[in-house]
Amino acid sequence: MNQYLEVDKWNIIEDGFNPEQQRSSESIFSLGNGHMGQRANFEESYSGDSLQGSYIGGIYYPDKTKVGWWKNGYPEYFAKVLNSVNWIGIDIAINGAPLDLFKCGVSAFKRVLNMKKGYLKRLFVAELPSGDKVEVEVTRFISMARKEIGAIEYNIKSLNFDGDITFKPYVNGDVRNEDANYDEHFWSEVEQGSFEEGGYVTTRTKKLDFHVTASMTNQLQQNGNDITEDADTEVESMQVSEEYTVPVSQGDEVSLHKIAVVASSLNHSTAQLKPHVKSLTKDAAAIGFATLLYEHTQRWAEIWDGSDVLIEGDDKAQQGIRFNIFQLYQTYTGEDERLNIGPKGFTGEKYGGCTYWDTEAYCLPFYLNTAPNKVARNLLLYRYQQLPEAIENAEKLGFENGAALYPMVTMNGEECHNEWEITFEEVHRNGAMAYAIHNYIQHTGDESYLSEAGLEVLIAISRFWSQRFNYSEKRDKFVMLGVTGPNEYENNINNNWYTSYIGCWTMKYTLESIEKVRSNNSERYSDIQDKIGFSEDETAQWKEIMDNVHLPEDKKRGIFLQQDNYLDKEQRTVEDLNENERPLNQHWSWDRILRSCFIKQGDVVQGLYFFEDHFDEEMLRRNFDFYEPRTVHESSLSPCIHAIMASKLGYSDRAYEFYLRTARLDLDDYNEEVHQGLHITSMAGTWMAIVEGFAGKRAKDGELYFAPTLPDEWSAYSFKILYKGRRLKIRVEAEEVQITCEDGETVQCYVYDEQYQITADEPLKVSRKKAVA
Amino acid sequence: MNQYLEVDKWNIIEDGFNPEQQRSSESIFSLGNGHMGQRANFEESYSGDSLQGSYIGGIYYPDKTKVGWWKNGYPEYFAKVLNSVNWIGIDIAINGAPLDLFKCGVSAFKRVLNMKKGYLKRLFVAELPSGDKVEVEVTRFISMARKEIGAIEYNIKSLNFDGDITFKPYVNGDVRNEDANYDEHFWSEVEQGSFEEGGYVTTRTKKLDFHVTASMTNQLQQNGNDITEDADTEVESMQVSEEYTVPVSQGDEVSLHKIAVVASSLNHSTAQLKPHVKSLTKDAAAIGFATLLYEHTQRWAEIWDGSDVLIEGDDKAQQGIRFNIFQLYQTYTGEDERLNIGPKGFTGEKYGGCTYWDTEAYCLPFYLNTAPNKVARNLLLYRYQQLPEAIENAEKLGFENGAALYPMVTMNGEECHNEWEITFEEVHRNGAMAYAIHNYIQHTGDESYLSEAGLEVLIAISRFWSQRFNYSEKRDKFVMLGVTGPNEYENNINNNWYTSYIGCWTMKYTLESIEKVRSNNSERYSDIQDKIGFSEDETAQWKEIMDNVHLPEDKKRGIFLQQDNYLDKEQRTVEDLNENERPLNQHWSWDRILRSCFIKQGDVVQGLYFFEDHFDEEMLRRNFDFYEPRTVHESSLSPCIHAIMASKLGYSDRAYEFYLRTARLDLDDYNEEVHQGLHITSMAGTWMAIVEGFAGKRAKDGELYFAPTLPDEWSAYSFKILYKGRRLKIRVEAEEVQITCEDGETVQCYVYDEQYQITADEPLKVSRKKAVA
Repeated sequence: MNQYLEVDKWNIIEDGFNPEQQRSSESIFSLGNGHMGQRANFEESYSGDSLQGSYIGGIYYPDKTKVGWWKNGYPEYFAKVLNSVNWIGIDIAINGAPLDLFKCGVSAFKRVLNMKKGYLKRLFVAELPSGDKVEVEVTRFISMARKEIGAIEYNIKSLNFDGDITFKPYVNGDVRNEDANYDEHFWSEVEQGSFEEGGYVTTRTKKLDFHVTASMTNQLQQNGNDITEDADTEVESMQVSEEYTVPVSQGDEVSLHKIAVVASSLNHSTAQLKPHVKSLTKDAAAIGFATLLYEHTQRWAEIWDGSDVLIEGDDKAQQGIRFNIFQLYQTYTGEDERLNIGPKGFTGEKYGGCTYWDTEAYCLPFYLNTAPNKVARNLLLYRYQQLPEAIENAEKLGFENGAALYPMVTMNGEECHNEWEITFEEVHRNGAMAYAIHNYIQHTGDESYLSEAGLEVLIAISRFWSQRFNYSEKRDKFVMLGVTGPNEYENNINNNWYTSYIGCWTMKYTLESIEKVRSNNSERYSDIQDKIGFSEDETAQWKEIMDNVHLPEDKKRGIFLQQDNYLDKEQRTVEDLNENERPLNQHWSWDRILRSCFIKQGDVVQGLYFFEDHFDEEMLRRNFDFYEPRTVHESSLSPCIHAIMASKLGYSDRAYEFYLRTARLDLDDYNEEVHQGLHITSMAGTWMAIVEGFAGKRAKDGELYFAPTLPDEWSAYSFKILYKGRRLKIRVEAEEVQITCEDGETVQCYVYDEQYQITADEPLKVSRKKAVA
Repeated sequence: MNQYLEVDKWNIIEDGFNPEQQRSSESIFSLGNGHMGQRANFEESYSGDSLQGSYIGGIYYPDKTKVGWWKNGYPEYFAKVLNSVNWIGIDIAINGAPLDLFKCGVSAFKRVLNMKKGYLKRLFVAELPSGDKVEVEVTRFISMARKEIGAIEYNIKSLNFDGDITFKPYVNGDVRNEDANYDEHFWSEVEQGSFEEGGYVTTRTKKLDFHVTASMTNQLQQNGNDITEDADTEVESMQVSEEYTVPVSQGDEVSLHKIAVVASSLNHSTAQLKPHVKSLTKDAAAIGFATLLYEHTQRWAEIWDGSDVLIEGDDKAQQGIRFNIFQLYQTYTGEDERLNIGPKGFTGEKYGGCTYWDTEAYCLPFYLNTAPNKVARNLLLYRYQQLPEAIENAEKLGFENGAALYPMVTMNGEECHNEWEITFEEVHRNGAMAYAIHNYIQHTGDESYLSEAGLEVLIAISRFWSQRFNYSEKRDKFVMLGVTGPNEYENNINNNWYTSYIGCWTMKYTLESIEKVRSNNSERYSDIQDKIGFSEDETAQWKEIMDNVHLPEDKKRGIFLQQDNYLDKEQRTVEDLNENERPLNQHWSWDRILRSCFIKQGDVVQGLYFFEDHFDEEMLRRNFDFYEPRTVHESSLSPCIHAIMASKLGYSDRAYEFYLRTARLDLDDYNEEVHQGLHITSMAGTWMAIVEGFAGKRAKDGELYFAPTLPDEWSAYSFKILYKGRRLKIRVEAEEVQITCEDGETVQCYVYDEQYQITADEPLKVSRKKAVA
């Protein structure tokens, strides 16, 4: 825990200058627009500790794998999130002396992340070693309206001197990743220079040949009036800078507007990159900082209108959820189906890669409910487009006949991970891909996705499962050996309940989907059959497995078993652990963790969350009551699922406790690791904990359900969801639940299992049921 | 397979120059004397592919661990076998042109490893680009009689020119390891210079501060007469050289005797190192090459007298076993209890570290039977001296109360390995340490070792086992979860039969040993109790576990199960595999190997070998018949155990097949990896396959047993063993077994389970029983 930020409903505020928190604040105050992102590094040079980070979605580097003992099948390369061109840099000199907050007296320092409007502001007074004092205010944003544009307003006021203020804005492509495996430099020089409106730099990645061109255009004002200073332009290898020196008198205010364009070969041909950037730079200069900011805040207003969760009576909870929603939309906006949601988004280098099963299991529901269908659909299409690589990946592991195993971590569809117990064995991820298709169709009703793309993915995954199970003569059942479940604190186990269950479910769902596509769109079905060489004869084996699968359970306790031998373990609970042993992964050797009954992340509980309707409530309760006390939640993805299940089972205090653990995970730095970046994907879990947890929202069998509870600490909360073309607003108060159809036709829903119609005319009002455990 | 060497009973012969085999030959023709070793690199400079390797026992480097994903508990460093000072180098120039076999016409090339006398000879004719032709004969040995001395005789004859021959012998400490994790340079300069008899170089390791001083003294002869040439001595950083140019006429023969001394701070104080080397160099120069060689061959004659295995009628088998015995004694002679037997000995860098469980499980029996007790005792003491580190190692993993876990790989007692499934989970190695003590005492009758050192080791290991088992409420039994057995093609399994069995056996043997020491040496016993805080109350838990242990078995098949879920696997046999899938570890991904029933190395069979008397022969047979067809023998340690078991069960063809697989593993380069170095530890398995396998030798319950078989391919074989102070010679012929007591008093033994007395007066002759399967 490390709480140094102020509580505020709409802003994240750091009051006072904390060099020792710099890396953490750089993560928390990050900006992004789905296309690119930037840690909250200072514009002016800073000699204190800092992790420089500027990232462009989809631009990565295949860093040579580092491994102790090579195993056949390991990937040669790990796709690294790539620290790319520094476009924010503005060196400042006061009477020739550099402004460096690490070497100045700093007062009145304040950093504010305005989440409502999507900008970062920084204010401070600095006294240089010379005694010169300046008051500085910097505003920065990355445009949500124009994806390739970032802009900075850098304001300096002379507090006590007459003299010169020098601005040296620059664009620098010579950047490095801190976490390069072999200290390699990933970028090389292409070209740099200046054009009418400013300067530009083009660099390329040494592997994969991604090209990035970044430019800047600068405009000065003095005391509110535009001034024209001749810039001293310097073009060096991989860098271009412009130097402006403005004479000032005490009290004068000088302001630099720096507008940057960052474009890449992902979206433009290499030949068009420079002309495109040049033209966009010219446009941006003409539009100007203020208008760009206005467009940007308008876009944020629209996002908030659809996605905000209002919590009354609990500012910490309010700030937490908004921070999570804000960071999610900064990371992924859904326009580009080639992009995805990295676990650290644009806020750090750690983990690398981009796409984990987090996307399907945790992020999809958020976008499904708060953004147009297209966004969630793009997330699904991302995997569809990577199906050939998933098939290739499975082939490497000995699977045949178009079986697909999606990678654990990927950027381009190829596996990046290199730890056998994860890479090769954490195969449950494949189930999440299938579940996401189901989830999408349940929520949107868009069955066309099946014939368009979904069915091919489902068949390929079912082919995998049917080969991954093997027949055990001993049991006369099908078993799945050597897997790692969602609980990564067990490895290479047999018959992980979650994995086997979702494996069977996938095959069942695929059979239903085949049926649907065949009857609704027989032509397309037969095209698919031809394309992937699919014959329904194959499904006999699927049915054989589904009918004869071994799913471990403990009949005495009436629970499912996480794996065959779970009950051979010494049974202890988290309460038995000493505080100084936790987190276990920092205190226990790996074998000890593996032998223990302690669970990193809900495993059986995750499965019960996905498939709650398959079981009666007492079954859910017995499992939750058994597994929850054994779960240490050392994955950021764990508490949200437990929050939802606790809400469902009427454990409202526990639900609230789990909620807080996820909502302020980064703001309060629970695990003291926020300096590495934010836990972006688990942020979607926070949203789920409210909407699916507290409000009990479900979309299933074509119907919509709510069963709202209200945490004692809150007086009310409200949120909106998009559902089959309607926009619904749900407000939960102590005594009443109100559901308003803000947009779209009358729709049926169930509240506490009673059927209602929600019309556009008037809000539905239902008395709130008090939770009973 | 790569067979390019000639078959010969006493020599390894390479006829013809094969640059593409250079690395392999460098391994095979390696020399060593237990103190130091040297790959068969050329003396003169060679620009072709080569792995330079000169190693000094006990001198190592802690190379920073390289790992993909760090796990709590991993060691920071891996002890690397250190390539050290090059003392063999002699640059040659003919009329000023360097002699480099990669750039000459080479004919009549022959490399001979004379195993009987322990030297390496190389002969060739080289035609330089100039047309000058020389005939060269080089003889090299590393003295078995004087451990710090190596010597070279380098003979050059001018075949077709009058002119100059230049010798530039040097000592060079500026060497590198090819396999440094981070390309680090491990040595740094200390001092170099010359003294009366020659030159010297002192270097030190950058970590651990090992100092090595190496010197040379050189003497020239022309046509058999000593000549005195003034040397041109050059002293450079980390190198000293002497240059001699000798004018020759066609037909002249010039010969350089280079005698080197290599000494280290392991055996001398840093201050004494140089004076010691200086004085030894002077002595060596006075003694001269011929006398040094004579002493050396005398020592080898003694070794062969005790350890040779004579095989009649099968020269390939004869050469194989001699090569193995030769390399074992070159690696370890047993004088120094700080040294041990690295898996590659002094023949390559791969694997690093020095001591694996190979020593106890495979090498100990060889030394126990062929060398004085002291040698095997020193191998045991090595572990006794590292007991504190083994206790520390166990503490890191959460064990308490003086429990010890010996490392998987070590140089100084600290764990070096960094793969969790091995490092933390392949704990069966601890059992081998206990078994070795038992084995030693059974063979030698030296029970004093128990009170001296053995009991402390046994108690510490038993403490480990008692904590490593846990009580399973489900089974009402003690289980051992999360282990890797000898079969490393299963990881993190539960209840590995071998590990659990040897764990229980250790506790039982420890209880017996406590009893023995208490009754034979009560004072010492109470000292031990005080020293390690041991109370016999602890043993209640041991007994509880031994009485209630879960050992998996399949009652239907009447076999033990390698682990709980082995029969859940798809049951296939090696015959079902395609040739192009083998070796599996080069063709299958790791998860696939783990899920398969295929066994890398005997596991249950290894346990049955150790404890054959605990089971009736039919039990052994059922298990062997079940597991052998599932065993791929992709560990060099596997076939020998199967050979012994096959012999015991009367499967004589199989036994011979397994024998050949181990005996000529390196000579015929079965796995095409001999270029990395030799498989030293498995060489002891070859010897076991003959003595314990074909000859059926056992030492158990105080008695000696034989049950000789004779492979069809052999007409006879004989070998000697040391047994309780006697030296026995066993000769097995087609019709008769002869056992002679060459030294010591009458001793009783059993041949084919009949009791006999072997007296010094006359050989025991027993009709040979023909094997019946």
